[in-house]
Amino acid sequence: MSEVTVKFNPEATSAEAQSGAKLIEVASCSGIDISNLCGGQGVCGKCRVRIDKGRVKFSNRVIGKLSQKELEQGYTLACQSELQDSDVEVWIPPESRSDSLVQISDYVIASSEYISEARTFGIQSDPPIRPLCQKFYLQLPPPTLTDSLSDLDRIYREIRRNHPEIPSAIQAHFSCLWGLGDLLRRNKWRITVTVHFQDNESPQICAIEGGNTTKRNFGVAIDVGTTTIVVQLVDLRTGAILGAQASSNSQARYGEDVISRMIYACTHGGLAPLNDAVLHTINALIDSLVRKNRIRQQDITALVAAGNTVMNHLLLGLEPCNIRVAPYIPTANRFPQFQAAEVGLKGHPKAVLHCMPCVSSYVGGDIAAGVLACGMHEKPEISALIDVGTNGEIVIGNNEWLVCCSSSAGPAFEGGGVKCGTRAIPGAIEKVNIERHRVTYETIGHQAPLGLCGSAIIDLISELLMDGIIDQSGKFSLLDHPRVRVIDDVPEFIVAHADETLLGEPIVITEDDVSNLIKSKGAVLAAVKLLLKTLDMGFADLEKIYVAGGFGAHLDIEKSILIGLLPDIPKERIQYVGNSSLAGARLALLSTSAFRKAESIASRMTYIELSVHPEFMNEFIASLFLPHTDMDLFPSAKAALERKRKVRPVCAFA
Amino acid sequence: MSEVTVKFNPEATSAEAQSGAKLIEVASCSGIDISNLCGGQGVCGKCRVRIDKGRVKFSNRVIGKLSQKELEQGYTLACQSELQDSDVEVWIPPESRSDSLVQISDYVIASSEYISEARTFGIQSDPPIRPLCQKFYLQLPPPTLTDSLSDLDRIYREIRRNHPEIPSAIQAHFSCLWGLGDLLRRNKWRITVTVHFQDNESPQICAIEGGNTTKRNFGVAIDVGTTTIVVQLVDLRTGAILGAQASSNSQARYGEDVISRMIYACTHGGLAPLNDAVLHTINALIDSLVRKNRIRQQDITALVAAGNTVMNHLLLGLEPCNIRVAPYIPTANRFPQFQAAEVGLKGHPKAVLHCMPCVSSYVGGDIAAGVLACGMHEKPEISALIDVGTNGEIVIGNNEWLVCCSSSAGPAFEGGGVKCGTRAIPGAIEKVNIERHRVTYETIGHQAPLGLCGSAIIDLISELLMDGIIDQSGKFSLLDHPRVRVIDDVPEFIVAHADETLLGEPIVITEDDVSNLIKSKGAVLAAVKLLLKTLDMGFADLEKIYVAGGFGAHLDIEKSILIGLLPDIPKERIQYVGNSSLAGARLALLSTSAFRKAESIASRMTYIELSVHPEFMNEFIASLFLPHTDMDLFPSAKAALERKRKVRPVCAFA
Repeated sequence: MSEVTVKFNPEATSAEAQSGAKLIEVASCSGIDISNLCGGQGVCGKCRVRIDKGRVKFSNRVIGKLSQKELEQGYTLACQSELQDSDVEVWIPPESRSDSLVQISDYVIASSEYISEARTFGIQSDPPIRPLCQKFYLQLPPPTLTDSLSDLDRIYREIRRNHPEIPSAIQAHFSCLWGLGDLLRRNKWRITVTVHFQDNESPQICAIEGGNTTKRNFGVAIDVGTTTIVVQLVDLRTGAILGAQASSNSQARYGEDVISRMIYACTHGGLAPLNDAVLHTINALIDSLVRKNRIRQQDITALVAAGNTVMNHLLLGLEPCNIRVAPYIPTANRFPQFQAAEVGLKGHPKAVLHCMPCVSSYVGGDIAAGVLACGMHEKPEISALIDVGTNGEIVIGNNEWLVCCSSSAGPAFEGGGVKCGTRAIPGAIEKVNIERHRVTYETIGHQAPLGLCGSAIIDLISELLMDGIIDQSGKFSLLDHPRVRVIDDVPEFIVAHADETLLGEPIVITEDDVSNLIKSKGAVLAAVKLLLKTLDMGFADLEKIYVAGGFGAHLDIEKSILIGLLPDIPKERIQYVGNSSLAGARLALLSTSAFRKAESIASRMTYIELSVHPEFMNEFIASLFLPHTDMDLFPSAKAALERKRKVRPVCAFA
Repeated sequence: MSEVTVKFNPEATSAEAQSGAKLIEVASCSGIDISNLCGGQGVCGKCRVRIDKGRVKFSNRVIGKLSQKELEQGYTLACQSELQDSDVEVWIPPESRSDSLVQISDYVIASSEYISEARTFGIQSDPPIRPLCQKFYLQLPPPTLTDSLSDLDRIYREIRRNHPEIPSAIQAHFSCLWGLGDLLRRNKWRITVTVHFQDNESPQICAIEGGNTTKRNFGVAIDVGTTTIVVQLVDLRTGAILGAQASSNSQARYGEDVISRMIYACTHGGLAPLNDAVLHTINALIDSLVRKNRIRQQDITALVAAGNTVMNHLLLGLEPCNIRVAPYIPTANRFPQFQAAEVGLKGHPKAVLHCMPCVSSYVGGDIAAGVLACGMHEKPEISALIDVGTNGEIVIGNNEWLVCCSSSAGPAFEGGGVKCGTRAIPGAIEKVNIERHRVTYETIGHQAPLGLCGSAIIDLISELLMDGIIDQSGKFSLLDHPRVRVIDDVPEFIVAHADETLLGEPIVITEDDVSNLIKSKGAVLAAVKLLLKTLDMGFADLEKIYVAGGFGAHLDIEKSILIGLLPDIPKERIQYVGNSSLAGARLALLSTSAFRKAESIASRMTYIELSVHPEFMNEFIASLFLPHTDMDLFPSAKAALERKRKVRPVCAFA
């Protein structure tokens, strides 16, 4: 073995490494971020890099994933490339970044629109904003010989006098006493106390600052997704969203889904790197929001995280090992209040971290948050929440009962496992229309297209189906369409030509992509259908469906029904709510009673384990069709398809 | 400046130091403990060491403090000696150690006798033992597919099922979750939870251990005295005292009393060394108790500290600076619950530290603890607590009202400022009787005498007075007594001859010692008298007096009255209760309701500032007499003195 130098561009960061080392690992150790959805298996093809100088040794998988042209240009997959004896220079294209903060600094506030709506459709009955941490400005009368209360009692007295709304059993955290005497006198008895309103406990003064800092009280809502992490900065005084940032969960380098991450965590020492990775991702997002909004890190006083049960465990540094094996037991579903700093998250040293309560090992705090945001737990009508993430979770119920289940959807709707898939970031194609040979599309931020986000993928499949370019099983049936080509025996549809795109390469959807997406939507639909069946209900019994997920700003409901992702009920009964997990986390940040409601939601929700249900596989297989093998379940889709067939040319191979 | 080597014996520890450095500082930096009550002023004479090799340069103060013979033998004061250009070897005699743990490993359980009594006379009405931290053994049913509660909820459920006495709002501290899954399974679902019962809050699980450790639940009661620190190890299951250890407060090297320590703390960076010093002293005592009782440090789950307000501040690392200057404001009088580990105290990493609540800047938690132990706050009779420490504190009251004051007594009754004074450690003379020329005495532990503890000093002054060896102003009046000699113009009485003592040197009491003691007792008595006067009361109104302090195992009440330390009321109404501060701390450790009572005691006690009272100086001066200038105040003492004068020879110079 010899030592070689690897230079990563465009950063121009150099690293020394041993020959034989994998390029992706050298990058990771050097702090260079490369997308790695499949955990280095050579499957996702997301870690495409170009070798500009020197040579690496790569496995056969690279040949399956890259085109001849790409190979000729020097492209390879970082996870499948080993260093040899020569120094190398590597160029990492923007789309191979998992943590591309710069690109997403204007992360589609898409979901935010729905989030601000969440107050309207979710928690109308809620009291006014009462955030987890509130700041109060106090002007204390200086002590005299006849008014010689201690510094701390003087603060308590002032709170009692001027803030009767704060329970008098308020206590200061002991750390507030350190340096207090000096702080009070230096600031002429004008201070700001940060009060943490704890559930069922006396409120606690968690910080004391000099002067009036009440205007600087911020909270962070975190959607800890398996694939994508979204962080939102909230002004705790007003409830206003100051900004949101998203990034791939950098745990992805250790595995794409929760199962592979659990396996990694439970092998020797694997928990720490996974814990570090998620903390790193969240902290980078917080950092970026802090910088962009010109606030101080110590003005973040409260954080609320919503994630699935495994993500919560990995965030808090808890072993998820027993979640994976029967009887599937998490360390906790409801988590005590953590101190953000003790966990390793940024913010004020005494900032509090609440995790949204989970229901079971496979239905997490993101779902309790989602139900909270939709408010379905408060309404008499029977409604469903369908949250399509890497895991698909479905909740059905009303103000009297709630049942839920989980189904493995995969990351397809977040851009994973799709050749040109991407998250809903600027440049992502979010809408597609195919009118004969003409394709029109819209990108987020009206930028040159970069890839396909979830909503575009749904549009595409629906359009391809309606135009007869693919059949109901997802196979390409119109191979002579001018936008269809076959690469390495796999047909694909060109959405945007090379000259239109940001990267100068065409954006396509392949038959494999369609097949992946059908599996994803099939898993979701099968779960909805089976859950309804166990309740002795059908699609028509749902008076409302809330659809949540990171599809993008807009989700075409009709097209989602057409491909069989959503049940075929009148489209006005279906509402796309975007990132409901984040919305719920924000509500809990802004209202202690909302957090309490989430706990009650989680504790009264009944989890139904579908993976062991004897009928699940049948339902799944029946759903691997566009929209479904039982077309009578999808009357409107059936009608639309029949209508189209009449006016459109018959498919070449139909 | 040159570098020289200093070797300290008998440790044989060598240190390098610069010429010009003070010997006591070199010792301190090398971890060699030398007594230093006066803070290096050359006043207390406690840092006497012998230079066996080489030479040091010493100040004139040494000549005033040491005899010619001592100087010839090579003795000097470490605080007054500077290194020169030669290497030196220094021998430190045992009595010059401030932190002589070995000597006091059998620290007179003196006070403990009274402490166990405290339960009888103090808190009869108390509920059974309900310590701050309790351990509960749980055998959890292992989870199954049909009983799939999370690990944490499983623990909560078991507590609800088997321990209905624990409020169901119990919460686990977040740190308990780390590693919990593995801990439960490794220990076959048998665990011990440590529950911290918090005042007004839900109880908290602060630790979870594998197996059954309920037998190992210990608490530590700490009397944080200005001069002496006493630590007691308590079995929290039974309330039994397993041992006690005492040591000089190693803060003494920075000053003898709270005023000089406050000054030191508030000069640049002085707080940290004072904080370190008291932590070091307490931790060394805890260590010693842990070793001696063969327990594990992590089995200490709760600590309660009782100290005056300044000591509390220095223990917790809080600036005491505003206590010293008008309007004398402490950072806090009632302290939040601290985590012992965050403060720097030994014990379980999550052990809790409660500090007994203080009344004001000059009446501390030691006094609230003392009142709690005596139970005077629960009885209708008017009683007084007189606590003689470095500060003398007096509380008068009953179950309806409590007033208190403070008076600077100095360390004389704890052996400070007295040439042969010592704390109540084995070898200390604790009782003295003088019958004409014959002196009899008893030592603690029946060992060869080492010095005079508080009770012996009271005996001695009383006996010297009754025998006419000193007069009522404390002057030696019988200079031709065979046991009286004059050294450097100061007369002294030989209590034990050189050949009887441990150190081969006579144990004496000097006229200066007597003068110091009269000032100490005068300060206490003046405060009692003036406090009564402000209440429009006299000595006779006191139905009970509790006397507390580190005098030793026994305090002769009659002799204490005779010298005017205690008011002249029928002696059966006076009870010596030893270390009531420690007793109160132990009660608070064993009962959350006792701690709550202490808080109520502190909050309803009225502090009267005597130092600014126009009559205080007159009362003090009137008390600088044995027993008092107004002999009618001390009728029994007056009668005793008159009786004695008739039978004993008339004093030579009377």
